[in-house]
Parts: sequence; C-alpha cells; structure tokens
Amino acid sequence: MPVTDVSGPQEHGPERIDAARNRALLLDAARRLVAAHGAEAVTMDDIASAAGVGKGTVFRRFGSRAGLMLVLLDEDEKANQQAFLFGPPPLGPEAPPLERLIAFGQQRLHFAHTHRELLSAANRDPQSRYGPPAMVLRRHVYVLLQAAGTTGNIDAQVDALLALLDPDYIQHQLVDRGQTLDQLGDAWESLARKLCGH
Amino acid sequence: MPVTDVSGPQEHGPERIDAARNRALLLDAARRLVAAHGAEAVTMDDIASAAGVGKGTVFRRFGSRAGLMLVLLDEDEKANQQAFLFGPPPLGPEAPPLERLIAFGQQRLHFAHTHRELLSAANRDPQSRYGPPAMVLRRHVYVLLQAAGTTGNIDAQVDALLALLDPDYIQHQLVDRGQTLDQLGDAWESLARKLCGH
Repeated sequence: MPVTDVSGPQEHGPERIDAARNRALLLDAARRLVAAHGAEAVTMDDIASAAGVGKGTVFRRFGSRAGLMLVLLDEDEKANQQAFLFGPPPLGPEAPPLERLIAFGQQRLHFAHTHRELLSAANRDPQSRYGPPAMVLRRHVYVLLQAAGTTGNIDAQVDALLALLDPDYIQHQLVDRGQTLDQLGDAWESLARKLCGH
Repeated sequence: MPVTDVSGPQEHGPERIDAARNRALLLDAARRLVAAHGAEAVTMDDIASAAGVGKGTVFRRFGSRAGLMLVLLDEDEKANQQAFLFGPPPLGPEAPPLERLIAFGQQRLHFAHTHRELLSAANRDPQSRYGPPAMVLRRHVYVLLQAAGTTGNIDAQVDALLALLDPDYIQHQLVDRGQTLDQLGDAWESLARKLCGH
C-alpha cells in the first residue's frame, strides 16, 4: 500500500499532528462563531476562514457542517457535565445543593441557547428528547433536589423544572415573549427555591 | 342552477338534517373508537361502520380522516374548556382554586392521552405548541395558582406544571417508564399542592 491515507484514523507522524491541530482550530473557531452569532448563522466558509484553514479541511475533519456541529455539541456537553459533576462551586460538589441547582439551571439556559439549532432538532424526536443525555440531567437535578431536602414527588419536580430548560421553550420565551436569559435564570431560581422550600 | 350541492354549507331541508345527523353519528362513533383504541388504531372504515353510514359519507362530511380527527379534537377541546371554565365542581368555579387545579390536571392528562396523535403532531411545531389553545390553558393555570395564593414567579410555575401535561411526555411516561394515568395524576397533584404551599 504505497498510498498513505491522511484523512482517516490511520494517519500518523506530522499528518496526525496537523490533523489534531486543525481539528482543534476549527472547533475553537466554530465555538466562538456560534456563541457570537448563533449556530444557524454560521457557515462552513465562516468557520474555515476564522480558523485560517481551507474549506476542504473542514470536510476532511468533520464530513459536513452537521458533523462539526455535532462534535461541538458533544464536546461542550462533556465539558458542561464535568463542570456540574466535578467542577468548582457553585456548580460543583463543594457548594450547597440548592446553590448548585440554581447555578446548574442558569448555566444550562446558556448552553441550550447556544446549541439551540441541534438541540431543537433532537427535541422533535421523543427518542432523543428522553434519551441518555437528558437522563444525566434528570439524575443530577433529582440528586440535588433530594439533597436539598425537598418533599413530595421528586420525579414530577425534576420533569417540571427541566421543562424550563427546553431549547424550544427558551427560544419561545426569548423571541416571542421578549424575555432575556437573565430573566429566565431568575425564573429558574425562583422555582428551584420554591421546590426546596426556601 | 338546477343542480343542488348537498355537501356544502348551502344544503337545506331534509338533506341538511341528514347531514347534521350523519355528522353527529360519525363524531360519536369516532369519539368512542378513539377512546377505546387510541386514534392511531382507528380507520375511516371502522368509523363509518360503527356509525352505520357509508364510507363516502365520512369523506363528504369531513374531507379526510385527518379532517374528522381535527373536528373531534376541536369539539372535545371546547367541551373541556367549557367544563373547567364554567362547569360544576371540582373543575368549575364553585370549587376552591387548588381543588380546581388538581382536577384540571387530572382531566387534561386523559384529554392529552386520548388525543395524543394530533396533539403530538402539533407539539412538533413550536408555533402551535405555544399557540392559542395552549394560551387558554396557561391563563387558566395562572389564574388558579394566583387565586390559591402561591408566591414566587407564577409564570415559571405555570410552564413547569404544564410540562407534565405535554402529550409526548405523557406517552413517554406511560410507554417507556410503565406509569399509569392515575400515577401521573398523583404526580400532578403533588406538584400543584407543593406550589400552593399545601
């Protein structure tokens, strides 16, 4: 096999280092552009140009725009979970449960807003709407409500709280009802405190 | 114009009486079949046969199966609103607000389950998800929470409570999590009482 395939997992040596570097550059550029303009306004050309690489490199690394956005969502979801499960307070375990719950909701509001395009598509499909990523969030909110000493049907409270983080709901509140992310964060805090009896 | 059109709003005399009778027979039959088997299992043939009319009459009266189901949903929605706005207790205005809120949720769970096919389709579209019928429900829950003397951000509490009546959520709870409508009714009651401080 005299031909070396530099696009797949077999790459090695300088090509592999270049590939990893380009991948990181593209994800960083995409993350910045999405945060600034919303995913739906960001094109492959924008991303390639902001990363200083050719457009072909984007396709070689991620297959498609949707592929890149999925990797971005996945990386951010992992970083987000890391932060609320193991990170510093107020998200992480050193803060009291109610403070963690409030911080969690406020952070997820921003997360859901940033990734609204992909999350909203996933939301249309009940399988993914109630699938594994949502289960991690449910479990986390359940544990925090329980640790905060809430009474009554905790499952129902988890599902009710998480409805305020639904990407379509957030978008509706922001676009149709003129709310801000800060106001939605206050609403989350108000409900979290109420359920925990504070 | 010697030809009389018996299918449209111009019909009169015996034809109009027949048309109204067939319409009522078909809606009653459809309502019974949907309640017994779920809308997705009910065909036009089933409905025509249960109503004792020809299949052609169903198409003449409602245009299509989807047309009939929409009329059924609309009639049931109107009857349901009539009941919780003006009907006897515990749904209607003579009962205390918390009792009305509990009865409202329990009745809407059954309503959402019966009409899950159409409501779930409407749910996929944020325009109809947050459109006029949903606004009537939001307003009703808001007024009851307020009358029950709840504190904190009432809008957030309304949205959180109504998430428990989402048709896809109900279906997920029943099918994937082995819950019953009675258990979901208890969960609704638990959250309603908690928000109202009882």
